[in-house]
Amino acid sequence: MQIAVVGGGVCSPEVRDMAHRLGRLIALHGHILICGGLGGVMEAACCGAREAGGLTVGILPGERQQANSCVGIAIATGMGHARNVIIVMSADAVIALPGELGTLSEMALALKMNKPVVSLDSWDVCGALKAKDPEEALELLDRIDLGLDQQGQR
Amino acid sequence: MQIAVVGGGVCSPEVRDMAHRLGRLIALHGHILICGGLGGVMEAACCGAREAGGLTVGILPGERQQANSCVGIAIATGMGHARNVIIVMSADAVIALPGELGTLSEMALALKMNKPVVSLDSWDVCGALKAKDPEEALELLDRIDLGLDQQGQR
Amino acid sequence: MQIAVVGGGVCSPEVRDMAHRLGRLIALHGHILICGGLGGVMEAACCGAREAGGLTVGILPGERQQANSCVGIAIATGMGHARNVIIVMSADAVIALPGELGTLSEMALALKMNKPVVSLDSWDVCGALKAKDPEEALELLDRIDLGLDQQGQR
Amino acid sequence: MQIAVVGGGVCSPEVRDMAHRLGRLIALHGHILICGGLGGVMEAACCGAREAGGLTVGILPGERQQANSCVGIAIATGMGHARNVIIVMSADAVIALPGELGTLSEMALALKMNKPVVSLDSWDVCGALKAKDPEEALELLDRIDLGLDQQGQR
Repeated sequence: MQIAVVGGGVCSPEVRDMAHRLGRLIALHGHILICGGLGGVMEAACCGAREAGGLTVGILPGERQQANSCVGIAIATGMGHARNVIIVMSADAVIALPGELGTLSEMALALKMNKPVVSLDSWDVCGALKAKDPEEALELLDRIDLGLDQQGQR
Repeated sequence: MQIAVVGGGVCSPEVRDMAHRLGRLIALHGHILICGGLGGVMEAACCGAREAGGLTVGILPGERQQANSCVGIAIATGMGHARNVIIVMSADAVIALPGELGTLSEMALALKMNKPVVSLDSWDVCGALKAKDPEEALELLDRIDLGLDQQGQR
Repeated sequence: MQIAVVGGGVCSPEVRDMAHRLGRLIALHGHILICGGLGGVMEAACCGAREAGGLTVGILPGERQQANSCVGIAIATGMGHARNVIIVMSADAVIALPGELGTLSEMALALKMNKPVVSLDSWDVCGALKAKDPEEALELLDRIDLGLDQQGQR
Repeated sequence: MQIAVVGGGVCSPEVRDMAHRLGRLIALHGHILICGGLGGVMEAACCGAREAGGLTVGILPGERQQANSCVGIAIATGMGHARNVIIVMSADAVIALPGELGTLSEMALALKMNKPVVSLDSWDVCGALKAKDPEEALELLDRIDLGLDQQGQR
């Protein structure tokens, strides 16, 4: 699966740690990590995935030089906020960490496109699943991937 | 001013009526109406503005043929949801009527870009002003345009 | 019709004069002028149309502040070169004046989208019609609009 | 390096074979292959790279389902022709095989962005280097990467 991680370009050490663990788990589950390629949550998630041997894709608002150091494949869109649409559209599922209005717009777009969205301490948008930690977020997505519902029933 | 009206592509008769009155007011105030160019709120607002002699711009997700009959200038983006970014970015202010997740993503983007956003019975996003009817929405924007704050003080 | 004028952002006085006359003619024929909204050919064409009472639309690579002073409706895309696609896609026909590689890419895209393209001393791309002056360019487009071929036969 | 391969979505067996060999070489040189993700030249290049163990990225005009079977990472833009800008902007260099007007527009954009462009039996655009086969195309790019000019001098 291609999993998008969205969240603030600036974040607290706690959120950074959570994003790092999430990126690591995404890689260990064999998924490709997609994100906006900048700092904060995006960088921490990329580095977590990279350190675990995973593949990371940064879909950047501008040029490739903007990419954080853990982006493996840098997609330069030159399209500013419109790149958020590409992040969401390229993902099988979206995991949202704390972030501001850009994060909210990505969650809304993903739900509109009928993509599974998991909120990890992020915005509370109707239709998004909630997870208490990265482990639970991945579990939720693995169940969706297997065609199970949230109670573990097919 | 270029004012964007966002809201559902399908809507109730009450919302349609409100959008029509809003479009009319926008035109009577001498503003240009920008919208997504499709049906529902967009169509009603365009027709209200058009009937009052105003200029209407539809920024479409696909081809020009998608434009409702009251769009004066049809901008065909072929970019799907990414056209929402263009609508917001081209506006001096955004007025949101009832709509679903696409509307929420537009409000979030507009606030992120520091544009004034007025909610007319739409999503309750922190930072958006609330108006009870189209008249109040326009009044709020005219004050902003004059550099007055919401209490009428400069 | 919505007619796109494409060409260099910087140009010689002769080309500037030709673009100005072209813009004027587009307005006098009752067409809407669409362009990239910046300087050079775009500005001269906009000003020609504006002075003749026409409607001008500038589809900008960045923010609205980039628009030349004769743009009536400014569409801010924030999408850099990708805005070229929107210019072409929004036009019934494209008239190309001298320009560099951006102009060539717009002519190629327009031909790919099966839009009529008239070259006024611009790139020689297979499929583009050639006109010796703005008058002939408009005549060619009016014939297309009437469903006549280039020999004046239906 | 991230190298973009552009060319027709439909092609002859000879061009298909050339694209396949080119993809293979790009992978063997350790580069990432970027393309439009569809059929013809894009598919053949992706499959050549994939079979040699390389990484392939398809930047699609629409949904992920459009990707050819050899695309490793599928970026769904939903932006039609505007995705061409992203392909070019994400590449360190562009290699063009035979193709139609879409290919021409990509070559023109790449040259406008000052990216090295190598033409392999494709359009003859001023500024593009010419190579007679995939081996020579890669050699030209490796020299550029090393900061050598085309005569092998630094």
